Amino acid sequence: MSSAATLEEPPRPVRFGIMGCASIARKLARAMLLVAPTADVAAVASRSGDKARLFAADNGLPAGTRLYGSYEALLDDPDIDAIYLPLPTSLHLKWATAAAARGKHLLLEKPAALCAADLDLILAACESSGVQFMDCTMWMHHPRTAKMRQLVAHQGTIGDVRVINSIVSFPSDEDFFQNNIRIKPDLDALGALGDLGWYCIRAMLWAVDYELPKNVIALRHPVKNQAGVLLACGASLYWDDGKVATFHCSYLTNLTMDMTVVGTNGTIHVTDLLIPYDEKYGPFSLDSKTDVNELATGWVPHPSKHVVTTDLPQEALMVQEFCRLVQNIREPGGKPEGKWPAISRKTQIVVDAVKTSIDNGCESVDVAS
Amino acid sequence: MSSAATLEEPPRPVRFGIMGCASIARKLARAMLLVAPTADVAAVASRSGDKARLFAADNGLPAGTRLYGSYEALLDDPDIDAIYLPLPTSLHLKWATAAAARGKHLLLEKPAALCAADLDLILAACESSGVQFMDCTMWMHHPRTAKMRQLVAHQGTIGDVRVINSIVSFPSDEDFFQNNIRIKPDLDALGALGDLGWYCIRAMLWAVDYELPKNVIALRHPVKNQAGVLLACGASLYWDDGKVATFHCSYLTNLTMDMTVVGTNGTIHVTDLLIPYDEKYGPFSLDSKTDVNELATGWVPHPSKHVVTTDLPQEALMVQEFCRLVQNIREPGGKPEGKWPAISRKTQIVVDAVKTSIDNGCESVDVAS
Repeated sequence: MSSAATLEEPPRPVRFGIMGCASIARKLARAMLLVAPTADVAAVASRSGDKARLFAADNGLPAGTRLYGSYEALLDDPDIDAIYLPLPTSLHLKWATAAAARGKHLLLEKPAALCAADLDLILAACESSGVQFMDCTMWMHHPRTAKMRQLVAHQGTIGDVRVINSIVSFPSDEDFFQNNIRIKPDLDALGALGDLGWYCIRAMLWAVDYELPKNVIALRHPVKNQAGVLLACGASLYWDDGKVATFHCSYLTNLTMDMTVVGTNGTIHVTDLLIPYDEKYGPFSLDSKTDVNELATGWVPHPSKHVVTTDLPQEALMVQEFCRLVQNIREPGGKPEGKWPAISRKTQIVVDAVKTSIDNGCESVDVAS
Repeated sequence: MSSAATLEEPPRPVRFGIMGCASIARKLARAMLLVAPTADVAAVASRSGDKARLFAADNGLPAGTRLYGSYEALLDDPDIDAIYLPLPTSLHLKWATAAAARGKHLLLEKPAALCAADLDLILAACESSGVQFMDCTMWMHHPRTAKMRQLVAHQGTIGDVRVINSIVSFPSDEDFFQNNIRIKPDLDALGALGDLGWYCIRAMLWAVDYELPKNVIALRHPVKNQAGVLLACGASLYWDDGKVATFHCSYLTNLTMDMTVVGTNGTIHVTDLLIPYDEKYGPFSLDSKTDVNELATGWVPHPSKHVVTTDLPQEALMVQEFCRLVQNIREPGGKPEGKWPAISRKTQIVVDAVKTSIDNGCESVDVAS
């Protein structure tokens, strides 16, 4: 008896075009190479062909990578399935909608947009073209995040989440303050709030399974540069049922990437949320149903230290997940996964509310929905 | 050749009277026994002689410990040098001033008083009698705290402290909510703010070397019990130079004892600030001049984990330090150490401001000085 072997073809690679040679794009190019052949760095575009060439050479891209001296040329390439877009935030609306209109799936750097209204236009363009949207909040794709999600969802372990704190900062030098696009009013007008506060807000939403807060109040005395772009700020967030969260983000203090989640039954501490200390290990600490001993001279039990290992770094897992969703769409009846645009939109809505509170003298601002 | 040996007498013990048999007094009785003969548990007073007897038996106090069925009787004992006072906060003013008026040194449980005005009367009574005052914020006396002080004071390590967060909570059961004095309006009207917020506020003041904030704003939606006593609350604190701190304290969430200090050059994380996980070890983590690697796929350097060991638990070190100060006063020209009452007063002033903000609908409140 012979069996007719059906040789299943591997899924067709997702052919990426990298639109813009920002330094973060180097990390993503590496991530795409790590998940080849699922992902294929098919093309790179910059405002000049020389920059694209340099980027390809510096990042070990394959010889066949097509190099474009304009973003339009990249979008004209019919053999590009998806655009990775790390351009300054003020350019997201134009180029993200243009990419979606050409039927390109969209992997968009954070902050997704300057405001929720802009993001809605981008998301509408993606929906209209049936392309996948995902923002590049890389830590979401680390298996540590999935592990912590299980713990937070388990009533006996964490219970009801009541208090969240997140602090995200990185120190900046004179060159950053003079030249970095992330604090230029015409390029990244949200400054630290869009760049770093995005992570804090995502962390807080993540911890409550994306239930939007009812209102936010910015911390007083946000710090701005001379152009009025935020260098440091924070806020408190309030939910209907009494949950409260606070965050602070800053370009003015030492590298810090904290998320602390306190529930009725347990507490989670992470101190390298955005970028694990080492890309292969994701540590966090868990206290659950902790008490003090009889004379209150020690804890019972001590916190447990967890380390979630991963062979692929979180940004490669992100690319892999994005490719999986794109490949799903290719199947008969396949549709974009709506979870990622929904999470991006909620994050942007809260960023908007914090910005409005800052602009209104740190008054309470209701969160739109 | 013979030498005339001068046999230096050991300092005369500090003879403590324990005024009230609260459960925290058990921890302090043990601490006093641990630093014998410097400290001597000379007497215990309760509202009934039976309770005092039971306390002495349960805690292994020496057979000669004098047992009193009233606080007055304890104060009448001329052979008592110092009073340890763990009574409910509403009784602090009466009994602390009475003890000071009888010339007894005062080791006072926290919160020191219901308000700064009360504390000022207590401190004035101590000053007038020339007795030592110290509140029982035990973690101040752990060698870990001294080690972290060095790091915070070292400009190159932490730099300017800019952001502080502290979360302190412990979970409570039905018995606590029904019966515990810490949430009875006539006994401990400050509730979680006085009990746990005291630690948060002390931590934040400690981190900035006791510079008072300019103003505070309570977090919205503090939780109170039916009697109006705070079960959970928080605030943001603001300093003139832009430093900002946030805290949250609660009886409604899992055991949590966090202090995070973020400076321009470094970050300190402690997660067992009030009560070390194990009384012999004080862990904390330090990041200093941290950066990410070239592709931002890891940290350089990784945080350093520190553990400060101690043979004596922090509460015994506190008693030891208190005894040292009392013994100093016995020396010719000896005077009380003013540092401890000053720190207590600043803590109480900030507690007052947060309470006022809560009472005023979470408006901004200037911190008195």
